[in-house]
Amino acid sequence: MVKVGVAGGSGYGGIELLRILSKHPETRLTAITSRKEAGVPVADVFPSLRGTVDLRFSDPSTTTFAGCDVVFFATPTGVAMQQAPRLLEAGARVIDLAADFRLKDLQEWQKWYEMPHACPALVDEAVYGLPELNRERICKARIVGVPGCYATAIQLGFLPMVEAGVVDLRRLIADAKSGVSGAGRRTEVHLLFSEAADNLKAYGVSGHRHLPEIVSGLSQAASGRVEVTFIPHLTPMIRGIHATLYARLTKEVDLQALYEKRFSREPFVDVLPAGSQPDTRSVRGANMCRVAVHRPRGGDTVVVLSVIDNLVKGAAGQAVQNMNLMFALPETMGLEGLALLP
Amino acid sequence: MVKVGVAGGSGYGGIELLRILSKHPETRLTAITSRKEAGVPVADVFPSLRGTVDLRFSDPSTTTFAGCDVVFFATPTGVAMQQAPRLLEAGARVIDLAADFRLKDLQEWQKWYEMPHACPALVDEAVYGLPELNRERICKARIVGVPGCYATAIQLGFLPMVEAGVVDLRRLIADAKSGVSGAGRRTEVHLLFSEAADNLKAYGVSGHRHLPEIVSGLSQAASGRVEVTFIPHLTPMIRGIHATLYARLTKEVDLQALYEKRFSREPFVDVLPAGSQPDTRSVRGANMCRVAVHRPRGGDTVVVLSVIDNLVKGAAGQAVQNMNLMFALPETMGLEGLALLP
Amino acid sequence: MVKVGVAGGSGYGGIELLRILSKHPETRLTAITSRKEAGVPVADVFPSLRGTVDLRFSDPSTTTFAGCDVVFFATPTGVAMQQAPRLLEAGARVIDLAADFRLKDLQEWQKWYEMPHACPALVDEAVYGLPELNRERICKARIVGVPGCYATAIQLGFLPMVEAGVVDLRRLIADAKSGVSGAGRRTEVHLLFSEAADNLKAYGVSGHRHLPEIVSGLSQAASGRVEVTFIPHLTPMIRGIHATLYARLTKEVDLQALYEKRFSREPFVDVLPAGSQPDTRSVRGANMCRVAVHRPRGGDTVVVLSVIDNLVKGAAGQAVQNMNLMFALPETMGLEGLALLP
Amino acid sequence: MVKVGVAGGSGYGGIELLRILSKHPETRLTAITSRKEAGVPVADVFPSLRGTVDLRFSDPSTTTFAGCDVVFFATPTGVAMQQAPRLLEAGARVIDLAADFRLKDLQEWQKWYEMPHACPALVDEAVYGLPELNRERICKARIVGVPGCYATAIQLGFLPMVEAGVVDLRRLIADAKSGVSGAGRRTEVHLLFSEAADNLKAYGVSGHRHLPEIVSGLSQAASGRVEVTFIPHLTPMIRGIHATLYARLTKEVDLQALYEKRFSREPFVDVLPAGSQPDTRSVRGANMCRVAVHRPRGGDTVVVLSVIDNLVKGAAGQAVQNMNLMFALPETMGLEGLALLP
Repeated sequence: MVKVGVAGGSGYGGIELLRILSKHPETRLTAITSRKEAGVPVADVFPSLRGTVDLRFSDPSTTTFAGCDVVFFATPTGVAMQQAPRLLEAGARVIDLAADFRLKDLQEWQKWYEMPHACPALVDEAVYGLPELNRERICKARIVGVPGCYATAIQLGFLPMVEAGVVDLRRLIADAKSGVSGAGRRTEVHLLFSEAADNLKAYGVSGHRHLPEIVSGLSQAASGRVEVTFIPHLTPMIRGIHATLYARLTKEVDLQALYEKRFSREPFVDVLPAGSQPDTRSVRGANMCRVAVHRPRGGDTVVVLSVIDNLVKGAAGQAVQNMNLMFALPETMGLEGLALLP
Repeated sequence: MVKVGVAGGSGYGGIELLRILSKHPETRLTAITSRKEAGVPVADVFPSLRGTVDLRFSDPSTTTFAGCDVVFFATPTGVAMQQAPRLLEAGARVIDLAADFRLKDLQEWQKWYEMPHACPALVDEAVYGLPELNRERICKARIVGVPGCYATAIQLGFLPMVEAGVVDLRRLIADAKSGVSGAGRRTEVHLLFSEAADNLKAYGVSGHRHLPEIVSGLSQAASGRVEVTFIPHLTPMIRGIHATLYARLTKEVDLQALYEKRFSREPFVDVLPAGSQPDTRSVRGANMCRVAVHRPRGGDTVVVLSVIDNLVKGAAGQAVQNMNLMFALPETMGLEGLALLP
Repeated sequence: MVKVGVAGGSGYGGIELLRILSKHPETRLTAITSRKEAGVPVADVFPSLRGTVDLRFSDPSTTTFAGCDVVFFATPTGVAMQQAPRLLEAGARVIDLAADFRLKDLQEWQKWYEMPHACPALVDEAVYGLPELNRERICKARIVGVPGCYATAIQLGFLPMVEAGVVDLRRLIADAKSGVSGAGRRTEVHLLFSEAADNLKAYGVSGHRHLPEIVSGLSQAASGRVEVTFIPHLTPMIRGIHATLYARLTKEVDLQALYEKRFSREPFVDVLPAGSQPDTRSVRGANMCRVAVHRPRGGDTVVVLSVIDNLVKGAAGQAVQNMNLMFALPETMGLEGLALLP
Repeated sequence: MVKVGVAGGSGYGGIELLRILSKHPETRLTAITSRKEAGVPVADVFPSLRGTVDLRFSDPSTTTFAGCDVVFFATPTGVAMQQAPRLLEAGARVIDLAADFRLKDLQEWQKWYEMPHACPALVDEAVYGLPELNRERICKARIVGVPGCYATAIQLGFLPMVEAGVVDLRRLIADAKSGVSGAGRRTEVHLLFSEAADNLKAYGVSGHRHLPEIVSGLSQAASGRVEVTFIPHLTPMIRGIHATLYARLTKEVDLQALYEKRFSREPFVDVLPAGSQPDTRSVRGANMCRVAVHRPRGGDTVVVLSVIDNLVKGAAGQAVQNMNLMFALPETMGLEGLALLP
């Protein structure tokens, strides 16, 4: 039984971790922190957990996670790196859902996150937690940086082509559409229902923080530098990411076969039959990425459609998938729930 | 292992049954029919079931459900009653999610459903499948009529007061708000996204088909005739029913204690702490009814708030709860999934 | 040409005033204040006004509204009363969209709004701006308190019955459903898209601030004390209020005729044909209240359905309707826009 | 006063025409047809028009539109071409909101629409009704084919670059997101609220009917053949199109200046300041296209964001804009309504 702590349990990543972990047969939740909700029963904040999670949120400033085998950080970027050294020393492992351990290039990291890194020494050791790319290293990791939601959908969608070297690596385009929960539970005007409902807009056109990890992951896969134009959009749904990916084919290849082969043994990537167009709802609540590959009108522009639930395969579910690997549990344990449709 | 057939598997009741039953540890799906989708793999119609449900829809006209221990009917009203006699004879039990077996009064039934009943002889034997009201009888039933979604939320909300005889039975008011999936997967103009989104309206004001079963169930509980004004509303959400119930108190009573006691051993009714106001999303995807009881400003008007997921506790989940009881399985088996929030 | 100032122009009441007033043929916008957006062009905050409104938001602490004939307050409750005396003295009139001038009973006001009133002397003079109830007095008013959105829909729905004395005044029930914009542009967690979408809940069950003005307005109309149980609900739409009203009939009367006669000369109340069930979207963006009256199954419970757009007939539109009356302009001027449907 | 007929008035194009035309100061509605609703008052189908439009729908098989100066066809593709010859002969002009007169290449037309064209002789005469491209010819036209909604947003977004010859014409990418009303008021399963809400998907990836008119219009503007990869997406909003356009820059140019200059005299194209990211809601209900041009991170990939309301600038509004030009009325007449926000 893996003893688990969750830091930052009152955001969307946090509740999703609790939903999954509270039904995971091999974990026991021991502490959940929240600055805002310290002292309050978890089930008062999230009534969906009434009768299942009996813990109270504890104060992060006094919670040591003593005895935990693993601590998940569902906190803003910049928190996990403060506590990781102490936790590792105490024998716990660390799984960060934020960006503290996603990039190897510290200069790049500081440019995007506008703060100095608190434990540069651990950055090298940390593993980027995309199992489809780094499974072996995750199994041995003490510290994992879980990929961003956009980064997961986009990398999984491009991966087979990029690894196979069949597309122009300098002209990848990722047009991604996200549900609003991807922005977290922050109280900002543009995230209000009356602002975001019945509305759609691009944002971060000049540069989004998930871009460097996308470039880094795909460059690793390509064994060469890739260049990506990445435009995220805010769309009026709660959960879901739909990435529409464009690349120029440089070599004739059976794309459908390439994708099916690449992901044939992946439990959480589903390559759809040729001609498919996945709905985001087909993965709502599920730890799954569904991918379809197209070549419209037989031209040399490849179009890949890749959907995930931003809070599951794009965050908490993938975090638990990493945990399963790190603790030698079956990779799918606790992650077999079906999507809620409709 | 209970061998299960599902008639009418391509509607929302059907897919929800498949979602629940395919993860139920003591059932095996053997046949799923659909007139429209006969021959098509289930997972092509509902990609959320890819990798989990391998069956194809079969033609209802040639599917006998031979060898099934139980057949669920997720068909329109009027279908189950055609097939129930033959199935019972063959040794199967029948659980109907439609209205064929909800009412005992055949004249009333024919008035509301505008057709003659095909097997009046079985109507008497059939049990109204609200476990909180009829658990003992369900355990022994061969044929169960699962309550309507509105009927479930409204009866559970009124039940303690009505049984205790503390309210004016002739002036109950049920103002209910439903998500659009309650109307099923029918292609009607008013159910289109562009009609139902960002919109809200009452309907069925002159009389809704769930009214007679509400009156019948509550009258049974009250040991006397109740009268209910029931106004349903169509609201822009996919799932969820919120019933706001009004009654005039005729006797001083500790309502909170009354409700907590009445439901203390019910696994799927959660009485919230005094002062609570439940969200429908707190039960989204879960087989749960959450109830809160209020007495605004200390007057003699009681207000009860009762929420369910219309497709789970209001349909497929409750149907499986009935099945568990009928087959002496633990009542909560396969029904412990948590609500998806947000 | 009426010279107009708007205080608090960056909320939803504010932008809706700007949308209406910028196309009103007899007004000229001269100043718009916003604490948060002082100095910013209005059209930068609300791009829908680009090319139409050229003003910048000005700082409320330095804006005197000198020369204005009328100042609209689209500010939180407690602001208008601070500035009304000075403005009246300068010869301007005041139209407050908040609650500063809605109640006559100062003790009641202070109980609900938890502050002392800043200009009790003006409270008596102020007119409650429901034209269908107080048209004559509005025409002569210097200061108007525009009714709350719920209060508008509910009073208009009950008015004919209450005036005619045909219902039990001590048992009125108002079950009201509101779009999220009714809560304003405040950044609170429960108003986030990810919290309010695909969800529905009651709130303010123990008492909502619109209750006293509803009671006060209806008591005035009834020439006797009425008692109302009022339960508001938050529903996942941007705009719209649907009030479902319940009353016990105490005298036989042709309700349809009563309603049609009562509102026959009202330009902004539309009594629907018998049997109708209005959509909120039928008034989206329009200054209109649509009302339908029902007597389900011929019993003595009357059900009235009343819909408005909370930001138009429930706020900014009604405010302009008041202005038209106060300045002897045609009552419908600038308010004839049709609802946006779908 | 222009006498106007509308064929196919009960769809979304139809009601939007009625909303605009009924307030247009120089038109008089004389006949509105609808097969389904023949004989029914328009306001019964669209209560938002109660009190404004007094006509009944008439039977298309017996309605001649005699005396009409112009007839709008808001019918499915294939209807206008049947009636256009007779109407032109009778002296009326024809404005078709469907695709009958959008393409000059009849073979191409028949490939996409799978029927023979009924009046090939008129195809040459007909003018493609994008005023920003063809204003002069529209002014003199007897017959206009109004561009599709996607085609409008995409062409306006690409136009300045394509005309200026500064991008690689063979690699244009248009990733477009549409609200559900773009699919019309057809009762198809995937357009149901419970299917389309909280969901997002691409469709028509192998080829969408708006593609040939996009290619044709842009090729005309470019004086050379362009190639476009066009991927439409269905998104959970009622109205709105957001086109995200990608092109490779082949010549250094001040894009912002290019766009501002190109559209400086266009009343219905609004070039946003550099760095802007338009919301679809900023044009909800308005006849306006808002465009922003970006060059992320200074690379050679240009990204243009272009938003319209699919029912207004993408259909009925643009149709009326064409009518204004054809009848020498001010181009903006009846089209100055502001967007409804929020």
